[in-house]
Amino acid sequence: MSGLATGAAAPRSAAVGEEVLRARAYLLRVAEPPAPHTGRFVEAVGAVEAAAAIRRGDVSREVAGETSGRRAADRADQDLAAARAVQARLLCPEDPAWPNWPFTSFALAQSEDLVPPLALWVRGVGDLAELCGRAVAVVGARAATGYGTHTAAELGAGLAAAGQTVVSGAALGIDGAAHRGALAAGGPTVAVLACGVDRPYPESHTGLLGRIAAAGLVVSEYPPGAVPARHRFLVRNRLIAALCAGTVVVEAARRSGARRTASDAQRLGTVLMAVPGPVSSALSAGCHELIRSGALLVTRAEEVTEATGRLGIELAQEPDGPQRPTDVLDAGQARVHDALPPRAARTVAWLADEAGLTPDQVRSALTGLERRGMARFQDGRWQRQTPGEGAS
Amino acid sequence: MSGLATGAAAPRSAAVGEEVLRARAYLLRVAEPPAPHTGRFVEAVGAVEAAAAIRRGDVSREVAGETSGRRAADRADQDLAAARAVQARLLCPEDPAWPNWPFTSFALAQSEDLVPPLALWVRGVGDLAELCGRAVAVVGARAATGYGTHTAAELGAGLAAAGQTVVSGAALGIDGAAHRGALAAGGPTVAVLACGVDRPYPESHTGLLGRIAAAGLVVSEYPPGAVPARHRFLVRNRLIAALCAGTVVVEAARRSGARRTASDAQRLGTVLMAVPGPVSSALSAGCHELIRSGALLVTRAEEVTEATGRLGIELAQEPDGPQRPTDVLDAGQARVHDALPPRAARTVAWLADEAGLTPDQVRSALTGLERRGMARFQDGRWQRQTPGEGAS
Repeated sequence: MSGLATGAAAPRSAAVGEEVLRARAYLLRVAEPPAPHTGRFVEAVGAVEAAAAIRRGDVSREVAGETSGRRAADRADQDLAAARAVQARLLCPEDPAWPNWPFTSFALAQSEDLVPPLALWVRGVGDLAELCGRAVAVVGARAATGYGTHTAAELGAGLAAAGQTVVSGAALGIDGAAHRGALAAGGPTVAVLACGVDRPYPESHTGLLGRIAAAGLVVSEYPPGAVPARHRFLVRNRLIAALCAGTVVVEAARRSGARRTASDAQRLGTVLMAVPGPVSSALSAGCHELIRSGALLVTRAEEVTEATGRLGIELAQEPDGPQRPTDVLDAGQARVHDALPPRAARTVAWLADEAGLTPDQVRSALTGLERRGMARFQDGRWQRQTPGEGAS
Repeated sequence: MSGLATGAAAPRSAAVGEEVLRARAYLLRVAEPPAPHTGRFVEAVGAVEAAAAIRRGDVSREVAGETSGRRAADRADQDLAAARAVQARLLCPEDPAWPNWPFTSFALAQSEDLVPPLALWVRGVGDLAELCGRAVAVVGARAATGYGTHTAAELGAGLAAAGQTVVSGAALGIDGAAHRGALAAGGPTVAVLACGVDRPYPESHTGLLGRIAAAGLVVSEYPPGAVPARHRFLVRNRLIAALCAGTVVVEAARRSGARRTASDAQRLGTVLMAVPGPVSSALSAGCHELIRSGALLVTRAEEVTEATGRLGIELAQEPDGPQRPTDVLDAGQARVHDALPPRAARTVAWLADEAGLTPDQVRSALTGLERRGMARFQDGRWQRQTPGEGAS
């Protein structure tokens, strides 16, 4: 299996040892996401040792609860081979293309169901960390209206034209329209699936998934061959939200998967946006509810990029780097950073008052500060942090 | 002219003396609204004395600036007669039907262009104070779409069914649809005009204006025969906003009269709401901008009444009155009242944080508290007030 590390589609895997790849592939197969206990165990002892311990059954009751059902079946080699067969590879946290920045939001959420993946199967040409340096999720109903798909495609194209990566779930309706809009504008786009990256689901999107892989990435934490079970869509939605600085819901019924992505986006501290529509449309009712409970109303790509702002990752590539950490902040971030007391923690509402900004502007600024390691969130409040100190 | 006080259409004028009626009729003719200096002068010395001083030219430079152009022409008798000819009458601040409660919001706005009228010409069967005890303004574009007029009519009917008075400007498009919806549901409705109450404007609404008068009131601060000059629409809009606990904008282009009513509503401290629509519609763009800058998104009458809440006027009529002022508060008002410190003044954002409510919920609660004399607004902040202390 040593061919994997040198395969054309997987240049970056060279950085990650074969042993780690096999361990992570095993872990993704045995622990059905989200697996918070397994995740913490892996973080504590490393992937290789954690996999060995799980295989032996020598683990805490909590980790056993997440892994005992499948621990005996080690299909790591087969999964890696199956991935290779479709030009896919396993992206590990040890890899430079791992989206570390976006995934810090999981620490922010402090929730057992909002945990990072143990690794990600990826198919396509893109570098996930780079793609998610400027990314917006565009999601919505499968049974979308013509208005919804038209609006999603316009947003996808507008965001791509503005240099944003459009992330979605490749589903029929809004998701597909958003991907197509991004591709039509020549931009990259990322599809996060609730099944294996080797499965064309939905079948009618086989061609679309191929085009997404050719321009960006098709991503999944489910092993090759995994079926899109119902609960996996909801679990998958957290990844769509976490990979992006903001999430736009284009059309959604009152109870829907898109609403779940929206809820995840809020709990992850990213910017939640929704597109309005006719009040008579049941497929806009969910969006209107989101806006009524605090989501930002957006009508075009420009309003989305204004709300999500620029990210730290971009700044790292600027030729003439700034001298002090605060030099890189935009006006809103600087005002919120100034408003944050050196030691005390404050709520978004307090900061909005102090900085003279709207709560949405404050949230957007805090997201930027958090990604730069200059603010952190704990127990519902924000506090100032010195970059490099690390979020605890 | 003593017949006026005993005319069938004007039973309540009996409470106001002939001399005051003539003075106020004169003042409305000579001082083009808004006339803040004249208003303060009238409040200080009384209508009769103020009218006499203005007639003589024996007034401050500021009052002279607002009145000197027309002071010589005393047409009070003719105006009162012209009103009588169309079953209209002059409603004065001395009259029990004067909307004292709603107009306290003018004091809140502390603006030279947001001042109460010196009196109001009214045509119809309704009691303005009673009608505006539970009133919502529904306004919007003249060149409305089918979607807009349908939604306005639905809202008008829904609000009327919920016992609210629908207040609007009787214009083509949204205004007319809102009035019609209210009438269709058997509710009263109030039209505030930018011309004399004897002028059918727009002409195609002659029948509608008659039906509004028969079920509610047609109101104007402009004397009989006054033409609807362009600037009068904007000046009139403040009255629509001030008479109501909240204003709903149904459709509006980016720059429009409805936006002005919206701005007045906010400055008057009442609840501003807007109806979303397709992002592709230029006539929803103004509504979307309003929502993006803080207006509450509403999709149906129930959401409107929830946001505007119950008013103090209603409570005064409850058979078994409450014992303490705070007993009458709803849950949101009670929480905001609790959050208000006894002496210090706070911003809406601070109160939202403290009370655990959204800024919109806080604003809505504060409006209710303000109308009950339990909170007051000064220099951008709110503070607690003991009822009966009066807003200074």
